[in-house]
Amino acid sequence: MRLNPQQIQEFDREGYLFFPGLFTREEIKVLTDEVPRLYAQGRPENVREKDSDAVRTNFAAHMYSYPFAKLARHPRMVEPIMQLFGEELYMHQFKINGKMAFDGDVWQWHQDYGTWKNDDLMPEARAMNVAIFLDEVNEFNGPLMLIPGSHKLGVIEIRKLVERGGIVAPKGPPGSMILFHSCLVHASTSNLSPWNRVSVYLSLCAVSNHIRRFKRPGYIAHRDFTPLKCLPDDCLLEHYDVPLPWRDGTPSEELQGKLKAA
Amino acid sequence: MRLNPQQIQEFDREGYLFFPGLFTREEIKVLTDEVPRLYAQGRPENVREKDSDAVRTNFAAHMYSYPFAKLARHPRMVEPIMQLFGEELYMHQFKINGKMAFDGDVWQWHQDYGTWKNDDLMPEARAMNVAIFLDEVNEFNGPLMLIPGSHKLGVIEIRKLVERGGIVAPKGPPGSMILFHSCLVHASTSNLSPWNRVSVYLSLCAVSNHIRRFKRPGYIAHRDFTPLKCLPDDCLLEHYDVPLPWRDGTPSEELQGKLKAA
Repeated sequence: MRLNPQQIQEFDREGYLFFPGLFTREEIKVLTDEVPRLYAQGRPENVREKDSDAVRTNFAAHMYSYPFAKLARHPRMVEPIMQLFGEELYMHQFKINGKMAFDGDVWQWHQDYGTWKNDDLMPEARAMNVAIFLDEVNEFNGPLMLIPGSHKLGVIEIRKLVERGGIVAPKGPPGSMILFHSCLVHASTSNLSPWNRVSVYLSLCAVSNHIRRFKRPGYIAHRDFTPLKCLPDDCLLEHYDVPLPWRDGTPSEELQGKLKAA
Repeated sequence: MRLNPQQIQEFDREGYLFFPGLFTREEIKVLTDEVPRLYAQGRPENVREKDSDAVRTNFAAHMYSYPFAKLARHPRMVEPIMQLFGEELYMHQFKINGKMAFDGDVWQWHQDYGTWKNDDLMPEARAMNVAIFLDEVNEFNGPLMLIPGSHKLGVIEIRKLVERGGIVAPKGPPGSMILFHSCLVHASTSNLSPWNRVSVYLSLCAVSNHIRRFKRPGYIAHRDFTPLKCLPDDCLLEHYDVPLPWRDGTPSEELQGKLKAA
């Protein structure tokens, strides 16, 4: 999958690209079938909502879940980002955000690169955010809201950013994908609807731009900068061997922060 | 203003009617200009958001604010409800809900008549909810969500109600009005946008259906069952005398609940 020149221009100008229905229902089913099993685990990678047992975020499933390990290497996701950055990528962060029916709570406006710079000492904003919808996203189940163009403006009051760029909330069927710049300001409201809105959020970083500090646990900000090797396009439906190094548990050194990189 | 037979049928079937732009910008300005003054007051009628000083609800402004006292008697609002109930009305509850930019929090799914029946001993669901938009309502500033048809189904799981009726969120310019049945299930999400979403919520009760218990303070559930007298249609722009009995403060007996009606 290659982006055309119009898409590259659009990404530069708006800070995001939306691909409705990029993955098929059959491919997405392989992933959604796995989610309840992941959310039921007592692993430290499951972070729950403050007022309920619903999972808010599951971290690093690509390290211990076979279908998500394949998703992490999917060419429809990885190749356009390699094209934009012009180099190989590693997985900086991997989350499955629940935003479950009735329980899914707000994510306030933020830019991801702020944290990556301050906590992880990531040198530049050369890491891409990816959202892949596992459920349909509609106006009622807490869609991701983006402020177009806000990736170019540094730290400005939200009110001013919105005056300039408005707000968009891409909606679409399961299997839709958003690529968005790590400086793009985004948020999402609570989900009061009876429809889950599970999405996978992946952050792929240019290898040369790897983080310089391991202050956060390794399952939140990954420390393995090995380039991702793409699998074939049919990888979600066919069998391919992928490493699952944390299948039997997360190594204890990955559960803590350290102030110096290894 | 009279409802036509199609509107009456629609209200019966869906449980609500929407009138986009029913009041003019000029009329609404008279009201919005008054809101900051009301919200700034230290009155017990101002209830603030749990995490900020933003006002979540202001109660009973029609008892101490001249423009809102006129709104409470506006024929474009009162007459269609009199037509539907076939009798005179009194004001059971009067709220200006802030849902302010960035701070406006969630209102969970509920039916108003549940509280009115249990707390206030209102005999039947013969009271009408009215929402009047003082700001534009859009998909981002926490619009009121309604489950069409849910007023007919008693106490049922939200998931089932939504499967049957879906969810609607009427959007429109300032001055729009929604009439909705006191058994209609409704909610609204938080407002993360930079746009306020101030709305007036009025509940007008058929006089014969007045409440039988004064358990809640009088400024929340009114105890004066005198029929509302409509003012002329131009009342928001022209001067008319209206009573403002709480202008100099809320009577102490209205601040507390009592278990017996007067």
